[in-house]
Amino acid sequence: MSARTQDDGLYFLPLGGSGEIGMNLNLYKTEGTWLMVDCGISFADNYLPGIDLIMPNTNYIEQRRDKLAGLIITHAHEDHVGALVHLWPRFRCPVYATPFTMILIRLKLGAAGLLDQVPLIEVPLEGRVDVGPFTVDFLSLTHSIPEPNAVRITTKAGTIFHTGDWKLDPDPLVGVKTDAARMTQMGDEGVLALVCDSTNVFNTTASGSESKVRENITRILSEKKGKVFCATFSSNVARVDTLAQAARQNGREICLVGRSLKRNVAAAREAGYLKDFPNMVHERDAGYLPNEKILYICTGCQGEARAALMRIAEGNNRDLVISRGDTVIFSSKIIPGNEITIGRLHNMLVDMGAEVITEKDAFVHVSGHPGQSELKQMYDWIRPDILVPVHGELRHMQKQAEFGRASGIREAIVPRNGTLIRLAPGPAQIVEYADVGRFALDGHFLIPAEDQAIVTRRRILYNGALVIALTVDGSGEFLAAPKITNLGNPEAGIDNFETVIIEAIFAAVRKLTTKQRTEDNRLGEATRAAARKAAKIYTGKETGPVTTVTITRIEEY
Amino acid sequence: MSARTQDDGLYFLPLGGSGEIGMNLNLYKTEGTWLMVDCGISFADNYLPGIDLIMPNTNYIEQRRDKLAGLIITHAHEDHVGALVHLWPRFRCPVYATPFTMILIRLKLGAAGLLDQVPLIEVPLEGRVDVGPFTVDFLSLTHSIPEPNAVRITTKAGTIFHTGDWKLDPDPLVGVKTDAARMTQMGDEGVLALVCDSTNVFNTTASGSESKVRENITRILSEKKGKVFCATFSSNVARVDTLAQAARQNGREICLVGRSLKRNVAAAREAGYLKDFPNMVHERDAGYLPNEKILYICTGCQGEARAALMRIAEGNNRDLVISRGDTVIFSSKIIPGNEITIGRLHNMLVDMGAEVITEKDAFVHVSGHPGQSELKQMYDWIRPDILVPVHGELRHMQKQAEFGRASGIREAIVPRNGTLIRLAPGPAQIVEYADVGRFALDGHFLIPAEDQAIVTRRRILYNGALVIALTVDGSGEFLAAPKITNLGNPEAGIDNFETVIIEAIFAAVRKLTTKQRTEDNRLGEATRAAARKAAKIYTGKETGPVTTVTITRIEEY
Repeated sequence: MSARTQDDGLYFLPLGGSGEIGMNLNLYKTEGTWLMVDCGISFADNYLPGIDLIMPNTNYIEQRRDKLAGLIITHAHEDHVGALVHLWPRFRCPVYATPFTMILIRLKLGAAGLLDQVPLIEVPLEGRVDVGPFTVDFLSLTHSIPEPNAVRITTKAGTIFHTGDWKLDPDPLVGVKTDAARMTQMGDEGVLALVCDSTNVFNTTASGSESKVRENITRILSEKKGKVFCATFSSNVARVDTLAQAARQNGREICLVGRSLKRNVAAAREAGYLKDFPNMVHERDAGYLPNEKILYICTGCQGEARAALMRIAEGNNRDLVISRGDTVIFSSKIIPGNEITIGRLHNMLVDMGAEVITEKDAFVHVSGHPGQSELKQMYDWIRPDILVPVHGELRHMQKQAEFGRASGIREAIVPRNGTLIRLAPGPAQIVEYADVGRFALDGHFLIPAEDQAIVTRRRILYNGALVIALTVDGSGEFLAAPKITNLGNPEAGIDNFETVIIEAIFAAVRKLTTKQRTEDNRLGEATRAAARKAAKIYTGKETGPVTTVTITRIEEY
Repeated sequence: MSARTQDDGLYFLPLGGSGEIGMNLNLYKTEGTWLMVDCGISFADNYLPGIDLIMPNTNYIEQRRDKLAGLIITHAHEDHVGALVHLWPRFRCPVYATPFTMILIRLKLGAAGLLDQVPLIEVPLEGRVDVGPFTVDFLSLTHSIPEPNAVRITTKAGTIFHTGDWKLDPDPLVGVKTDAARMTQMGDEGVLALVCDSTNVFNTTASGSESKVRENITRILSEKKGKVFCATFSSNVARVDTLAQAARQNGREICLVGRSLKRNVAAAREAGYLKDFPNMVHERDAGYLPNEKILYICTGCQGEARAALMRIAEGNNRDLVISRGDTVIFSSKIIPGNEITIGRLHNMLVDMGAEVITEKDAFVHVSGHPGQSELKQMYDWIRPDILVPVHGELRHMQKQAEFGRASGIREAIVPRNGTLIRLAPGPAQIVEYADVGRFALDGHFLIPAEDQAIVTRRRILYNGALVIALTVDGSGEFLAAPKITNLGNPEAGIDNFETVIIEAIFAAVRKLTTKQRTEDNRLGEATRAAARKAAKIYTGKETGPVTTVTITRIEEY
């Protein structure tokens, strides 16, 4: 126990998701015991080139893993569950989730060879579990995936209402409408702190209903004569059902294209959803149907290179082609950072003669996060003493804090990854800053985002590299010309790059004393500095290449 | 002259800007002579990591430069003039521009040491020049920089109306309102082809007026008590004037922060604009004014690392700080691709306690490109036989072609970079595909975007590099252990990376025959393949590192 925490207090510590949208990982502590809520992953952005996936650095909780009672997964989105297979071996605690989420967790763990190691506890919808000193109630909300849960966490020191990702859909189509009476009851029973999704706090309107999307897509399909392709997020089972029902209304068969879509639909059916889902046509057979009789539901709404829609656009799907008169609907938002990639895909589709319809053209997508009016409703139900905005960049969290205070909540405190916040006793305040950071998945290693391997690669991206192998005798005389390996320096000058570098090395080494040439450090550094400078002048770059020197000394032969 | 072109025809060939927004470079040809319109640059996106600036590959016109009569620069935006200093030495023709544009061209050429080499012909506003067989009339439009010109290009084979970048601002504040009578006259005199900006064709409404922006910013300033910082595009002189006048109305002094802003304001004043511009306070002195008495106008609205606003946000401006109660207005759009960078800047500013206002919060920016109603007005004025959409991605150009046909234009043809289009005689059609591509500015070299240097750096970004130096005798016996240089491979395994690689090399070389070891090719390839495979297994990556081997043979000593 830290000197600044006390056993009878209640604490909150996010390791991910506070100050960013993605890789949620939250910790609660009371009576010396920790509870983790969610364990998510993010896509790396242009600040970490060469890396695809990142996740929270969990060193802090690894050091305290004997005090970690369990991990609650609120829902099956990657930014809440995607890091489980990578990080679980580091803290090895029981994992709790509702049935649909648990089906997908089992698939993930199975693929990673971890299924027989992880204690899994399936919790029924609206169920309750005791995890150490925490009593956890699961409450069904609405979002963009089946079984999005809020959790009420009751402790002796106070009660947390942790929303997870949510919105209020008056007509959600898959799953149930949020139970206003039960939410009011939660508030009546008393909540110390509301830990709440900030994603859409800048939206002054409510996010809207899936049923409106269904109406629009049904209408659009009725107007189209060619093949229609629709890309969406594969875990958005309600949307997939929307597309399937819209197709049925218009006499179109459906064909799912992309593995993750098939996996999610299968999981949803296994969990008892999609009971009225139409039969599906296989890709191989769909081409035999008339154009106006088929709707392809595809992965790849973000322009992902390996997903179905990009592969079709590139002509790499052997069964499916897009041609003039076809329509491609993006029933999705553009995730910030993907604008260029998605724009390029749009251009490819237009080039093939397709009409492209996005949420800018028609209401074909609805968000899964709460706008201001929904937040206000949640505050009115829960009536917390303290608001803790999470799931947002700093600007989103700050905005929700302001909005919450303006809505009458007494206290609001904005966390950052690594802030240990005491929620009780006394006013909410940061009492400790934990070491945090990010792990990057690089091959099969999790390395810190600032690891030398990543730094070196990023440097080479701009400045190239230069490796020089010297072979000398004991006194430092060259036994052969230095070997120059040029990695990524443009060789566009009038002079030969290699010759320029070798001459610079010879000139530098000539200036060394006989004794200096016998010392690897002196010989190597003189060579490195001269070669790097010569390369810098040759290429005209402000910074020279990453330059390394190896020395092989053959003392006698 | 190509076999497929004829001297009495009129041809259009874009080398840049058709199929992308950026790096405009257009060529017209008649009577065996070429005319270039604009010579622009682009920022490289995430498809060309490690490169900042790109521009059209001009090999095609370089090979015909004796037939290139001149280069018209329509206006001074970088995507129209930025490549001049890099490309002009390759084709060396006279350059024509109006006064404000010419001031900035002179500054650029001076900085590049080219001022005394380039023949510059300044054209007055609404002026006319003869360039070989082309008679070029300059016509003032409105845009987001002083002196945006359309050019009417009259030839014996027909007349082109090339719009450049434009919008219709009923109240432009700097420069003049578009002269409807003169535009109608252009149409009356007959135009074969309208070559027209497609950027905002998806906007169903008109772009709006600068004077509305002025009203809004004046109002916002009246509500603020703290310091106000406003970032905008530095070449948008009307916007800078808007900010200055809004400050004056609210009793605030102005201070320009950032070199390009000062350069543009100075150029505008030299060209006779901004006659009523208030005096400016220097950064060093501005801090002595009360917070409510100063407006800082800053560069860096796109979050550029070296521009004023980011430097202030990072605490790297010695005179200026942002603190609680201050306001930062982004009087600008987000250029696609910059979302993450700008979002990060917003978060930094919020973290300092500032309020951030963008065009999402208030009408503090207006676009400089035409929406559909403005395009329709242009079509009605010019009444061309042929519409040639340019300045757009494919989807924008296709959309304008559709819109133009629906608006009654007889023909519309969508160009791509490299399509040589015959506009006359006969129907417009592509008659040749010229080799095109992009040059990347890498240090001081212009290299093809697909150059090996760039490809290698991109490979290393994901997969790292591995350089092995062997020192062997004539028979291939090792005289020393191989020297391993690891560039960017994570060394996170239980085994030592270098040891793993050396053991793999030894094992591979042992399998070679005595004769094979005497051959550098065989020895090198066996080493390379073994090392790369071992590294791939070690790191768990699908693709091994960029691996190279050098061999130093010491025959006798």
